[in-house]
Amino acid sequence: METTLRLHYAPDNASLIIRLALEELGLAYETCLVDRATGAQSQPAYLALNPNGTIPALETPDGVLFETAAILMWLSETTGKLAPAVDTPKRAHFLKWMIWCSNTFQVDLRHFFYPEKFIGPDPDQQRQLRGMFRARIEGDLDILEAGLVATPGLAGGGTPTLLDIYIPCLLRWTKLYAELPNQPWFELSRYPILHAIAQRAETRASTQAAQIAEGLGPHPFTAPILATPPEGSAT
Amino acid sequence: METTLRLHYAPDNASLIIRLALEELGLAYETCLVDRATGAQSQPAYLALNPNGTIPALETPDGVLFETAAILMWLSETTGKLAPAVDTPKRAHFLKWMIWCSNTFQVDLRHFFYPEKFIGPDPDQQRQLRGMFRARIEGDLDILEAGLVATPGLAGGGTPTLLDIYIPCLLRWTKLYAELPNQPWFELSRYPILHAIAQRAETRASTQAAQIAEGLGPHPFTAPILATPPEGSAT
Repeated sequence: METTLRLHYAPDNASLIIRLALEELGLAYETCLVDRATGAQSQPAYLALNPNGTIPALETPDGVLFETAAILMWLSETTGKLAPAVDTPKRAHFLKWMIWCSNTFQVDLRHFFYPEKFIGPDPDQQRQLRGMFRARIEGDLDILEAGLVATPGLAGGGTPTLLDIYIPCLLRWTKLYAELPNQPWFELSRYPILHAIAQRAETRASTQAAQIAEGLGPHPFTAPILATPPEGSAT
Repeated sequence: METTLRLHYAPDNASLIIRLALEELGLAYETCLVDRATGAQSQPAYLALNPNGTIPALETPDGVLFETAAILMWLSETTGKLAPAVDTPKRAHFLKWMIWCSNTFQVDLRHFFYPEKFIGPDPDQQRQLRGMFRARIEGDLDILEAGLVATPGLAGGGTPTLLDIYIPCLLRWTKLYAELPNQPWFELSRYPILHAIAQRAETRASTQAAQIAEGLGPHPFTAPILATPPEGSAT
């Protein structure tokens, strides 16, 4: 079969979430490195695929997609997998947490990690912005933990959903970013449901494939270390 | 029929998007004012519905939903309306722009409007953050206009979609926020497709219902003025 899906990725970027979904679904796909070391994500060839300059982009038979959550939803809809069925009560809550992961948790992580994109080059201002976003991220973690307790079965047990892929990656980056600049502040074990979701994710074959492809180390979600990828650069 | 949908709203907040969708779908619903004048969105009664303290929340037979884009998707899925069908080529692009509106355009608008939530009380720093986000929003407008040109039929013509509701509201707030502090910088007419989407939205009965309910004035999307709502406060 001709491969019709091509993932534009950089190691340990948000494209990891899409790689995990493709692996979990057993879909054939090609990868194409976006070379962050040379700023390829901001150059015309990549901007023609994704004018936002964010990674990933996914070439599909229907055209080029971007936005991690949209690609996840599209993969789920076209395969009928990794999500509660439409018209089941869990579906409403599934959508709620998918969108929240995308526009709250992931956005807060991005602002924490790239303060210069939002406040400019002054180190004091960057520290201040980081402080504000650290507080937001800690609130996000509490909200997500409580939300998944209140609505069991969305992730961490039973049939895997997209949240079983999305959340572990966000927890990975929370942990890695929390080591920056040098004051670790995130302990996954304080969040029992999130911890269980991350642990379960590490048992899946899809995760093992991504660990090798992107050099994620032995415990990519519960005890992440900086990636040592076979090609490309995470930042 | 007993009303089973209850929209927690504040006038001219993101809840407007949900009101428009409910009206467009002809669904029965109740509204419950979140009184921003007394900070009700940050008080325990509301946080029990939406721990993020963001407006809207929608009580449904399946539980309480929050996140505007999630509520929109859920309303579309449960009614089979306002979106391209699953497994049609347009669906992929529809999902892409829905998520992008939620986690890029709307987030940038929020940061522009509430800089104090992200950088603190210093006026100079707030101005600087606003400047960064103004540049981002101008980029967003260009990206959305070009994207809708490249994939016709997602909004602005034919059967209305959720984007025909979501985008006009975001354009409304762009225009209102662009008057702040006092240097208008947004001209909708520079974006022909976006302008057409806003114009068409003003012809719909759902818009007229929302104009009355939230005091939006005669041209809420193409020439918005600050709301003069019959109850509650927009900020």
